[in-house]
Formats: sequence, structure tokens, C-alpha cells
Amino acid sequence: MKQAATSLDTRTDGPGLYELSDETRRWAETQGIETGLLTVFCRHTSCSLLIQENAAPAARRDLERYFSSIAPEDAAAYEHDEEGPDDMPAHLRAALTQTSLSIPLMGGRLTLGTWQGIFLFEHRRRAHERSLALHLLGV
Amino acid sequence: MKQAATSLDTRTDGPGLYELSDETRRWAETQGIETGLLTVFCRHTSCSLLIQENAAPAARRDLERYFSSIAPEDAAAYEHDEEGPDDMPAHLRAALTQTSLSIPLMGGRLTLGTWQGIFLFEHRRRAHERSLALHLLGV
Amino acid sequence: MKQAATSLDTRTDGPGLYELSDETRRWAETQGIETGLLTVFCRHTSCSLLIQENAAPAARRDLERYFSSIAPEDAAAYEHDEEGPDDMPAHLRAALTQTSLSIPLMGGRLTLGTWQGIFLFEHRRRAHERSLALHLLGV
Repeated sequence: MKQAATSLDTRTDGPGLYELSDETRRWAETQGIETGLLTVFCRHTSCSLLIQENAAPAARRDLERYFSSIAPEDAAAYEHDEEGPDDMPAHLRAALTQTSLSIPLMGGRLTLGTWQGIFLFEHRRRAHERSLALHLLGV
Repeated sequence: MKQAATSLDTRTDGPGLYELSDETRRWAETQGIETGLLTVFCRHTSCSLLIQENAAPAARRDLERYFSSIAPEDAAAYEHDEEGPDDMPAHLRAALTQTSLSIPLMGGRLTLGTWQGIFLFEHRRRAHERSLALHLLGV
Repeated sequence: MKQAATSLDTRTDGPGLYELSDETRRWAETQGIETGLLTVFCRHTSCSLLIQENAAPAARRDLERYFSSIAPEDAAAYEHDEEGPDDMPAHLRAALTQTSLSIPLMGGRLTLGTWQGIFLFEHRRRAHERSLALHLLGV
């Protein structure tokens, strides 16, 4: 049994889903692990992780609109406003989605389904440097 | 330290919570692992995973109704409609619940609480073949 | 590769976010693991886990209010009411947040970001004894 860990850093430029499937797969599938477990961890509270539809851009736009509608920017609704009107909805959208993902590997490959992509879900308006921790273990 | 991995395939027949606690437990608790970690991963984006109340069928019906109400079928609301009116709400309900579950084992048993069951949450209307990836490691 | 597992038990006294970062870190970072993976698992279906903003108490209050508003107590809305009016909303709020968290360790420390805290999210009104299962593995 062996393991590997790394940081995957990326720059976001406003709200939306940023696909990281290729970068993640490239790292996870080149560590000499046939059977194992990949963990992706988001080190922030105003962006999050999501495994979702990787083919239809319209589905991603609907996802973005949906989370904007159920956790809207609304200055009157939130007590916490020191970091701008998009900060508290960002925390809510992060709470509704994922901070960590666990994906098994079999046959040297992530077991992602055909239509599954790994996305960083940015909830803030300003550009941000975002950092994910990746951990892999197996044989 | 050793590990095991398998596929757990199941057929769903319309929306709702399908309990997989018995199948999952039977596999995870017969691999000779006393202390370890089980990962359950859903290989789809229009169904998802949930650990929830395993005793009261009324609680499950309420859960199903609730997710139908906060992410409703509504042709006018979504841009992505090529796969039918139940497809986009399925992605939303999946995004609000889980794609992966991580459950420790102690004393040879999953640490699930008394009232916790493992459920596949089907969000599509048509019958589907669904595939989960199970990964277990420990001693 | 080695592993450790333990129970982290805590008493809650009504709805809200209870920070468990210190207890979790104290255990996870004193097992002699430099690189590895921590899993935190909640053994209940009416409380849950969340990694969220650890600095601003107002952000936590907004989070609590938000989940109360999207999954409200509403006797007329739910079929399952045997365990009191706060039980079914508790299951819904748990379904919308997390039952398990996976956090990598690097350099002997959890990779939590500066502003990330680990919280138990209690959804019931009465006092409860809550139990988490912690699992750690690595080198």
C-alpha cells in the first residue's frame, strides 16, 4: 500500500463551474496505483466541489442559476456582510454542495461515470486563487 | 493494511430512495477488515447517495417530496431539456445530496448509527441500471 | 501505512453549529501521521457535519437561519411527525449538508484552510448526546 498527496491550485475569475477532471485524472492515474482511493478536498468556504454533468454546457448554466436562486444575493437577508454582498450566499452555496469528494480507482482509472466531471464551484465575483488538496492511496 | 473494491449494481424503477444497507454491509463486513474505511461512490449525475432514517417510511416519503419541491420539474425554469423534463431537476437534486459516502469500520462493523440506512436516491422517472463503486481498506 | 480510529462524543443543547475543530485536530495530529487521510463520520440522521467559516459568528448565525428557512418546521408540510415538529426538518437539513467529511493530512497537519472550521450541525431542539466516528490512516 502506498500513498501520494499534492496541491492542485487554480485561478477562478468569477462565479461558475470550473472543470478540473483532466488535471485531477492526470495526477491520480500516473502514481502507479491500480486499485485505490482518491480524495479531493477544497480548502475554502466560499467555493466548493461538485461532480456533475460534463457534456452539456446548458446543464452547467442551469446549475449555476439554480444555486444563485436558492441562495441569492440579498443584503437584507444576511447579518454577515463585511466581505461584500456575494460572501454570505457563497458560504450557503458551499454548504449545500461539497467540500470533499472520494473517488475509488479500479484498473488504474478513476471510477467516474461517462458523464461525470469534477468541478470547482466558484461562488465569489472577484478573481481568486483556489487551492485543493489531493490525496491518493492504494496498490 | 489491505483493500478490496467491487461494483454494486442495482436497477431502479422511478424516483425514490432505494435502500442498499444490507448489500453494502454484507460486502464490507465479510472482507476480513476489523478497522478500516468504506467508500461508496455513485457513478451517475441524475441519481445520488444519502444516509438517512431507515425505520419510518413516512420520513422517506417526506424526503422525496421535499427534494421534488425545492428542485421541481418546471420546463420554463431550465435551459437544458434535451433529455426530458425530469433530467435537469435530477442533476439539481443530485448536486444537493451526495455522490460519495465515507464510512469507518470498527470492530469489524460499519459505524452506521442505529437509525442510519444507506440509500440510492433515484431522481429519474424511467427505469435505470445504476452502478456504485465500493472501496474498502483497513486491517 | 498505519491507521487509528476513535469515537468523538459531544453533547448538544439545541439547534446550531458546534465547532469541533480543536478536538478533531488534537486527535488527528497526534497519531504520528505525516501524510494521510482523516474521515469524520456522523452517526445520526437529525444532526450533520459542515466545514464552514470559523471566524465570523454572524456567518454561523446566517447559516443556521438559512437552513431553518429552506427546511422549516411546518406541521402541515410533513407526513412524518411522530418524533415532534423539529424531527422531519432535522432530517431534511441533514440531507442537505454532510454525513461524512474527508480531510487529507500533509506535513503532519490537516489541510484545512485558514478560515475552515469543522462543525457538528445540530438540528434538534432537545439536548442530545452525539457520537462521531473518526478514522485516520497514513504514514
